Amino acid sequence: MWRPRRGPVSLTPDDPPVRFEGLATCGEARAGTLVTPHGRVPTPLFMPVATAATVKGVDIDRVAGTGAGMVLANAYHLHLRPGEEIVGESGGVARFMGWEGPTLTDSGGFQVFSLAKQVKVTEEGAFFRSHIDGRAIAFTPEISMRIQERIGADVAMQLDHVIALPAERDDVADAMRRSLRWAERCRAAHTRPDQALFGIVQGGLEPDLRAESAARLREIGFPGYAVGGLSVGEGPEAMVSTLRVTVPHLPEDKPRYLMGVGQPADIVAAVGAGIDMFDCVLPTRCGRNSLVYTFAGALRLRNARYASDQRPLEAGCPCPACRHGRGYLRHLFLAGEMLGPVLASIHNLTFYQRLVARLREAVVGGRFGPESRAILAGLQGAGGGD
Amino acid sequence: MWRPRRGPVSLTPDDPPVRFEGLATCGEARAGTLVTPHGRVPTPLFMPVATAATVKGVDIDRVAGTGAGMVLANAYHLHLRPGEEIVGESGGVARFMGWEGPTLTDSGGFQVFSLAKQVKVTEEGAFFRSHIDGRAIAFTPEISMRIQERIGADVAMQLDHVIALPAERDDVADAMRRSLRWAERCRAAHTRPDQALFGIVQGGLEPDLRAESAARLREIGFPGYAVGGLSVGEGPEAMVSTLRVTVPHLPEDKPRYLMGVGQPADIVAAVGAGIDMFDCVLPTRCGRNSLVYTFAGALRLRNARYASDQRPLEAGCPCPACRHGRGYLRHLFLAGEMLGPVLASIHNLTFYQRLVARLREAVVGGRFGPESRAILAGLQGAGGGD
Repeated sequence: MWRPRRGPVSLTPDDPPVRFEGLATCGEARAGTLVTPHGRVPTPLFMPVATAATVKGVDIDRVAGTGAGMVLANAYHLHLRPGEEIVGESGGVARFMGWEGPTLTDSGGFQVFSLAKQVKVTEEGAFFRSHIDGRAIAFTPEISMRIQERIGADVAMQLDHVIALPAERDDVADAMRRSLRWAERCRAAHTRPDQALFGIVQGGLEPDLRAESAARLREIGFPGYAVGGLSVGEGPEAMVSTLRVTVPHLPEDKPRYLMGVGQPADIVAAVGAGIDMFDCVLPTRCGRNSLVYTFAGALRLRNARYASDQRPLEAGCPCPACRHGRGYLRHLFLAGEMLGPVLASIHNLTFYQRLVARLREAVVGGRFGPESRAILAGLQGAGGGD
Repeated sequence: MWRPRRGPVSLTPDDPPVRFEGLATCGEARAGTLVTPHGRVPTPLFMPVATAATVKGVDIDRVAGTGAGMVLANAYHLHLRPGEEIVGESGGVARFMGWEGPTLTDSGGFQVFSLAKQVKVTEEGAFFRSHIDGRAIAFTPEISMRIQERIGADVAMQLDHVIALPAERDDVADAMRRSLRWAERCRAAHTRPDQALFGIVQGGLEPDLRAESAARLREIGFPGYAVGGLSVGEGPEAMVSTLRVTVPHLPEDKPRYLMGVGQPADIVAAVGAGIDMFDCVLPTRCGRNSLVYTFAGALRLRNARYASDQRPLEAGCPCPACRHGRGYLRHLFLAGEMLGPVLASIHNLTFYQRLVARLREAVVGGRFGPESRAILAGLQGAGGGD
């Protein structure tokens, strides 16, 4: 398994704080390097999600041990608890959680949409109540920038207006254009020179709206571009077809980040559509629920067939879970032992890193097509359970 | 921190499977080595408790990283779930949980007393219902030996009859003498040559009953002797005074194991009374509840005073929790994040290993008295929270 190089990267004052260095392409798929103030990470890259400054159940050395090069945290959650002041005083989110590599914070746009209570979105911003204690909170573009600068990740995200799909075209267009105006306000409010601000393309499943959003963001100018508002119920085919009409409008020399995606097969398809960066809670969320991924398909560890199965989850996987037999891991879940979710999460995070590493190698080797088809075929298996 | 040597130890057929090699004494306190088929462990030693073949929340490499040399598992729990057959098929409890060092299984006597439902103890054995699914279970000395041989730890414990204290002297005497008869039956039923069987001294807080129990067990002859039935509500002074009248009746050339004890101060006192081996759930149980130990006293991590405290739990502690500030660990507990209990457990386990290592060094250095007083004084502090 490749290991990302971590540690400070020398940037001169004129360098953008985060940049993309291309290495190879194969069709639309790309391999390269994301260069940040806290290290270089090979792409395609997958960021484990450390919502509240912790990858759920996994200590930070183990996160590094999965091969992860960059970690995502969430401005919404950290604002609510413990507050960006405490994170800032601790030297920023990376130091707060003991992570030596680069970090990214989501702005909170998606969490306002998915978690917050009594949400009201106006031109000014999003006004809502905390899902923890009900207190009133305002997220404007300016407030989101101030929070994210204080949290201090290498990459901050613009505040965007996320809506559920399917939705009326007019509503999609309104939210997309509001997100564009918020992008401009975020750009104007953002001051921290050692932090990059990424814009977020919106526009639902409407090709022309996606194109308009991407083109306008490109005019505003960002060091990186995300595709947001997907993986909210539209299905994998719609997701990929939306990427196919969006990515061509993004600049080739900037990183492309598909937010919140996804299943392993989604990642394979999205790399094929030209995406460089991913984050998703699935590896840890599924791990906590005893579902583990392998290149031969997923295993449900509670299944009785694994009771006496002494094989590792996947032969050749270097993770600490794969030092044990499946029967042991099943026992941990049936006994309600915390170590079950912990080990399954580590395995799944390792699997995602092995997946993006394999995709990268395929791009570099000029065999992305056949390799991605082979991976997708394997993912539909039964996990080698027979 | 010392690290125990693990890995197979060559034993000739005439060697007892487990033996004690003395190194130094200081008053009653002793330092030495427990030699087992799976490695040599310096004493005094503390065994993390892996009840169901997992130290709760801590993966097995991290358990080794705390400095632990030997791990305890529980025959009662493993019999109930997943069953000793599955553990045995996996190569025994050590291999099942991925532990390369020695292991010990408690017989279940204490769990029958503390966990099981509808318990009936007769001369034949203990008959009860599982606390998990209510099914009827019989633990006789012979059944306990069969279960523990199948589980395959380096040390098995006799089945004993544990009763709550305070109790009538007659009841204490009856349970003690029944435990002696069960000790003989365990001795007769035990066949596995690569596993040692330890006897357990009972007798409540009655000096003459403890003396009788120890003397009779010594006549039966065991490669190691435990002191059971303490830390069940009698208080630390009664515990130590009972050890003072029990230990002199045990052979000097055999290991002495105080079961289920205890608080750090209890361990200091018990080493001073000549005990070599300990196990206790406190480091992990307290850790899960945000209480952490330091040589300057315990900290309650939920306390608001730690919100912005960037110091580690204890300066000089090499554990992964101490790479973080106290404010971060507090945040994890307040946010309900699994990593809080995980890291606090690792810290506490590391603390217990540092404690027994420090006691060992004091014995070897001939300064157990002043060092133990210094440790006890420190343990009463406020955790360096000011």
